Amino acid sequence: MRIVDIREIAVPLNSSLRNSVYDFSEMTTSVVAVRTDVIRNGAPVIGYSFNSTGRYACGAQMRDRLIPRIFAAPPESLLTEDGSNLDPEKILARMMMREKPGGHSERSVPIGTIEVAIWDAVAKIHDEPLHSVLAKKYSAGRVLEQVPCYVGGGWYAPGKGIADLEAEIRMRLEEGYTTMKIKVGGAPLADDLGRIEAAIAVLGGGQQLAVDANAGFTPERAVEYAKALAPYGLRWFEEPTDPADFALMAQLTSFYPGAIGTAENLFSTQDIKNLLQFGGLRPGTDIIQIDVPQSYGIVQFSRTLDMLQRMGWSRQSIFPHGGNLMTLSLVAGFGLGGCEAYPGVFGVFAGFADDSKVVDGILTLSDRPGIGFEGQNKLYEVMKSMF
Amino acid sequence: MRIVDIREIAVPLNSSLRNSVYDFSEMTTSVVAVRTDVIRNGAPVIGYSFNSTGRYACGAQMRDRLIPRIFAAPPESLLTEDGSNLDPEKILARMMMREKPGGHSERSVPIGTIEVAIWDAVAKIHDEPLHSVLAKKYSAGRVLEQVPCYVGGGWYAPGKGIADLEAEIRMRLEEGYTTMKIKVGGAPLADDLGRIEAAIAVLGGGQQLAVDANAGFTPERAVEYAKALAPYGLRWFEEPTDPADFALMAQLTSFYPGAIGTAENLFSTQDIKNLLQFGGLRPGTDIIQIDVPQSYGIVQFSRTLDMLQRMGWSRQSIFPHGGNLMTLSLVAGFGLGGCEAYPGVFGVFAGFADDSKVVDGILTLSDRPGIGFEGQNKLYEVMKSMF
Repeated sequence: MRIVDIREIAVPLNSSLRNSVYDFSEMTTSVVAVRTDVIRNGAPVIGYSFNSTGRYACGAQMRDRLIPRIFAAPPESLLTEDGSNLDPEKILARMMMREKPGGHSERSVPIGTIEVAIWDAVAKIHDEPLHSVLAKKYSAGRVLEQVPCYVGGGWYAPGKGIADLEAEIRMRLEEGYTTMKIKVGGAPLADDLGRIEAAIAVLGGGQQLAVDANAGFTPERAVEYAKALAPYGLRWFEEPTDPADFALMAQLTSFYPGAIGTAENLFSTQDIKNLLQFGGLRPGTDIIQIDVPQSYGIVQFSRTLDMLQRMGWSRQSIFPHGGNLMTLSLVAGFGLGGCEAYPGVFGVFAGFADDSKVVDGILTLSDRPGIGFEGQNKLYEVMKSMF
Repeated sequence: MRIVDIREIAVPLNSSLRNSVYDFSEMTTSVVAVRTDVIRNGAPVIGYSFNSTGRYACGAQMRDRLIPRIFAAPPESLLTEDGSNLDPEKILARMMMREKPGGHSERSVPIGTIEVAIWDAVAKIHDEPLHSVLAKKYSAGRVLEQVPCYVGGGWYAPGKGIADLEAEIRMRLEEGYTTMKIKVGGAPLADDLGRIEAAIAVLGGGQQLAVDANAGFTPERAVEYAKALAPYGLRWFEEPTDPADFALMAQLTSFYPGAIGTAENLFSTQDIKNLLQFGGLRPGTDIIQIDVPQSYGIVQFSRTLDMLQRMGWSRQSIFPHGGNLMTLSLVAGFGLGGCEAYPGVFGVFAGFADDSKVVDGILTLSDRPGIGFEGQNKLYEVMKSMF
């Protein structure tokens, strides 16, 4: 058993979205395909992934050093003890050869993306959904069958007013979502509060609304917003600070009563640990939003979860970043708090299987082997074209 | 006045070195050349740089998005107010368009490398050494004419014993160095202490010796080494922790009496600020070793210095990472603590001008315009081949 080929392509998102800090007009993502010599259901097993959203394609690092390191290893050294499958932990260690400590994002994104594609192949070799494989390995076999899923939106757009926001939210409620996250910080505070009050009125309560500042505030504005948002009892307030401004985070958590969400822009276990130690995040209250394919992948995520558990955190406080099938597999397989959805944005990379449904805010799982990209037709068209 | 072309090439270091954590056998660096339409001394001004050492070449990020962003800007928008030169601050802001907050190393290295090449061009347009241009802008015109320079070495190699280390140190003393840094952590503690005692004996005192653990220790071993090293009164103890393990750093600084050096693997002002706030580093005692071309470049470095000053740190506590002419220009231009040298390693990227001298641990400055790569023949051969 061995990996026969690993390919990657960079695909533009072709998104016209913008939040309070940046737009996605140049954004690309790397799609990875890992072909093995294993035959399942009459075809060679190929694992797929992409590097989530918000970080640019990273194929050069893959081509120049990560993929060559994998192929320079004896194939049997990358297998499980009994030789029955690929071992993602060994492949991760192999990719980390000759890497200097610290400075993560340059390699954590390409390594994590390859690693998640390896897991897709691993699950397909088991002929099981990835969430089942992960549950057996990391969660005593318990799959979270009812995955809570909220929907992201409420982007800023020229001419978009309160009525448009209300219509957007109503559409999402009709689609089956019950909780929504909207952007803040791209308008003056008073305007944002108007948007928030309108959104709460449509959604039916502050606990149905989260807001996302995308790390775009000055410290002063972060404090100002936290004070102004406190009375609304929101589900959470996301990225009020620079991702690594732990001192400011500690200031906010000292007085903001509700949940704060962050961590999609921290890429190592150590950085997350610093966030908890120095940022004053509160187990049982705050929300951690690691992006797994951007943070060295699933094996490293399991280590981060171990660290979180030792620090008193429950898996229900983890809402992984990225509204896609990789995230859904992780939430169901590890029993995490829930999943985000970004239907219709980020091009072919947004969303779940074409036959997936959201009912009362709960997203359906599929039985497809692996991550299940084969059920997401437009994305799978891109993936299968790679071989 | 405008930038006409920006080119980059990836060059292997061809180094067989290894420290306690990793080897350099695959290491590459990106060389950047920025050609302008300005003529000085009968030739077009071209600014050069490379992305220091220890982080792989990063040309893809430059080609795919950073260089196109520069050329998509109206040329006059990248000039100083009076139009007399390029403005690195505006070019930095331009490269940062559409970048998500946090996750620095993926872009801080390519952005910093381009930015330093821009500064080389800026100084050449002034027809002055970069250290003079920096001193005028950032240091009230005061150039540090006497730059302290220590030498790095003491690498591990198969069969290399104490006698070889002693001979290596003697050679460096004969070359004019007075202070040396050697690796630790690649041998058992007792062996490392033997190496340290031998080195101190040759150098003449603990204050002439620094040691470098390259962030390779477990927390337990970091504490064990700090306790064992304390009596030797070393110049400094470098990277005893994971670059971002601020809690462990605070533990070490609570009892280790001497200087600790770190920060070459932190790439943003915010990360350095966290190191100071949470790592317990002591102004006047500890040493900060930012790698400027890997950390968004010189404009951002000046912002980091402002932050450091507000937190009570002197510029003399800064020893920038990288034994090369870029670092020398920074130390002399900003009046920093000193410079490192790695003669004969890291291929053509090690060292200073061919006519430079070290006398009693003081490195000579040159009068060449810009960074002065034109006086470092083997490296300049690579650079000038790019146009």
